[in-house]
Amino acid sequence: MTELETIGAAAKSAARVLMCADTETKNRALLAIADALVGAREEILAANREDVTAGENSGMTRAFLDRLSLSPERIDGMAEEMRQVAALPDPVGRVLSDTVRPNGLHLTKVAVPIGVIAVIYEARPNVTADSAALCLKSGNAVILRGGREAIHSNTAIVRAMRGALRGVGLPEDTVTLIEDTDRAVTQALMRLNGYVDLLIPRGGAGLIRAVVENATVPVIETGAGTCHIYVDRDADVPMAAEIVFNAKTSRPSVCNAAECLLVDRAIAAEALPVIAARLAEKQVELRADAEACAFLPNALPATDSDWGREYNDYIMAVHIVSGVDEAIDFIARYGTGHSECIVTDNPVTAERFLARVDAAAVYHNASTRFTDGGEFGLGAEIGISTQKLHARGPLGLEELTSMKYIVHGTGQVR
Amino acid sequence: MTELETIGAAAKSAARVLMCADTETKNRALLAIADALVGAREEILAANREDVTAGENSGMTRAFLDRLSLSPERIDGMAEEMRQVAALPDPVGRVLSDTVRPNGLHLTKVAVPIGVIAVIYEARPNVTADSAALCLKSGNAVILRGGREAIHSNTAIVRAMRGALRGVGLPEDTVTLIEDTDRAVTQALMRLNGYVDLLIPRGGAGLIRAVVENATVPVIETGAGTCHIYVDRDADVPMAAEIVFNAKTSRPSVCNAAECLLVDRAIAAEALPVIAARLAEKQVELRADAEACAFLPNALPATDSDWGREYNDYIMAVHIVSGVDEAIDFIARYGTGHSECIVTDNPVTAERFLARVDAAAVYHNASTRFTDGGEFGLGAEIGISTQKLHARGPLGLEELTSMKYIVHGTGQVR
Repeated sequence: MTELETIGAAAKSAARVLMCADTETKNRALLAIADALVGAREEILAANREDVTAGENSGMTRAFLDRLSLSPERIDGMAEEMRQVAALPDPVGRVLSDTVRPNGLHLTKVAVPIGVIAVIYEARPNVTADSAALCLKSGNAVILRGGREAIHSNTAIVRAMRGALRGVGLPEDTVTLIEDTDRAVTQALMRLNGYVDLLIPRGGAGLIRAVVENATVPVIETGAGTCHIYVDRDADVPMAAEIVFNAKTSRPSVCNAAECLLVDRAIAAEALPVIAARLAEKQVELRADAEACAFLPNALPATDSDWGREYNDYIMAVHIVSGVDEAIDFIARYGTGHSECIVTDNPVTAERFLARVDAAAVYHNASTRFTDGGEFGLGAEIGISTQKLHARGPLGLEELTSMKYIVHGTGQVR
Repeated sequence: MTELETIGAAAKSAARVLMCADTETKNRALLAIADALVGAREEILAANREDVTAGENSGMTRAFLDRLSLSPERIDGMAEEMRQVAALPDPVGRVLSDTVRPNGLHLTKVAVPIGVIAVIYEARPNVTADSAALCLKSGNAVILRGGREAIHSNTAIVRAMRGALRGVGLPEDTVTLIEDTDRAVTQALMRLNGYVDLLIPRGGAGLIRAVVENATVPVIETGAGTCHIYVDRDADVPMAAEIVFNAKTSRPSVCNAAECLLVDRAIAAEALPVIAARLAEKQVELRADAEACAFLPNALPATDSDWGREYNDYIMAVHIVSGVDEAIDFIARYGTGHSECIVTDNPVTAERFLARVDAAAVYHNASTRFTDGGEFGLGAEIGISTQKLHARGPLGLEELTSMKYIVHGTGQVR
């Protein structure tokens, strides 16, 4: 057995215990972890300082160091998140269907844990606590593979969590951090069939691509989003300007931020200056096609590489279309199936767009920024799936479960 | 664009039409295909004779030739299957959840088609018609990759289906057969990301393994099953004998057939001779551990390779355990997560087994042979999933859909 297989086997064995753990035990563990994180604050901060210093010395960007840095408040925030997850309903044991067949067989389809979930992520140490909380509540063991830049922080956080798990009588291998930061280990984790039931990559497009390309275990892709807002001829222009402004500028780095504005030719002359003026308040750079440039004196000319691009920045592509059908076609070609929006007061046009655009979330007269577990009422999320199997959109606790058929008979044979 | 990408793009474009096709159109297409198959009976039979002759000349087994061979009745059976699928409820458009958020956003989660489904299968030409029917009804385009030994039969079947699709005004690329039988094309299909939304391998363990190892598109594994029956100390022995007999012998070649009998030590002396006598009626070869051999004069000694083995034949492994917990552990180690059964009159023991065994279907006092779309009331199935994501157990029409959130707002921003 390799070291990683040993970790896999231990996690699998913990998962068998977790599978039957009752709600109260899991909640007690979450609350104990919350206390343990607060109790270990100094150790965690000291470990984090090592990571941050190393990051500074190797010339990491300010944004990177900000994601990496913990503070007493951030640790309290992680603890608070644990308590919030404890307060959410247990997704395990939900009855998904219940039928009696003509031969008397009684079939109950119930939600069960998935088993062992591996999470590969980058430099944010709060993802460590966050992923563990959601996996634990949904009855799964988790194998964490954080970025090497956060290894000291993650080690300290996981040590505190494992101590708390032991304290409530759950296996400490419920939460395991892979401490070996060698890249080959990440590759091997993606191919740990027989131990890993689900792999969730949480990070940028490069990570997702590497996982899709290399993984042989089941994967849920998360996170990549090129979202469009289509402003229809029947749009309320001030509403359109507010929605575009919010979707582009409220948090440009996230996957539900809008990247491309599509405008109906029939309303372009009226709408584009209003929208552009609003976006100018945040100095958004516009990259527009030739026709749109005529209404946008400060825009740069767009090139083909601007369509379908996820800027994650204060930049927005602008393209004029002949109407809703061209908008739908454009999105089919360039969208990533995350969140797509139409602004219109025409309900027929809206329904056409909502039915024909294939994405995790399609919006009529609302910002794409709402695609989020909290905003959708799921309580928490481990990511946003842009794939079509298992779960699409925000992945909450229910999405971290599988199902099984429990069949009660009285001797039936076929 | 490669030839395969051209096929993928055409299927994707058909899928966009199918996504919005109403139930009546899809049903009309299914009925037209049924008529077209009956109408093309002579051509299909002639094409099938070519395949069967080639198979005979290359020394294929009788069982193989039987799976490959069509008859007028089998073609009528395919047509009848089309009509049955037409009669099933449309899985698209089901409302999965419907909520209004405190900010007034109205979220409706609805079932939508997956898009383009690729099916890789072996020599049975009826899988061609069957897969196409289920994909069409669920609003998906399908790319079929049948075994090269059935290429003439499949070509004739698909030609008839495409003609019928044109006749009702649906794109003929709703159903595409890959006619190039080169193995490299199969490999490329497994990696046709951007065109294929789901790949379903239907066939033996070797095919499934090749797909899991090589595919970069999302996959649902189907078909492998090493099912156990545990006869508990509190079992009704005649019932146990009937269930084991049925699960082993009613159709040994299928994935829900039982492969291994686990017997509680406390009842072994009483139960094993009774069960063995029943199995002897069908000349089932028993491969038993040393302890069980003492009660089974005709058994062969089992070796380690017998545990977890899918015989697909009139062979059964027999192992004595100390009770339900050892049975659960044995199944955790050797089961494939398909169907597992306990025979007992003790409800507490039964619940322990049902809760702790992690499989698509867990049975109390009934044959594992019931794990089947028809038997579970799904109407039809495209396979039985033994993985934990998206769908577990029989894959019916509902399992061939994805979901999306439709969000209606009145200008909400975040």
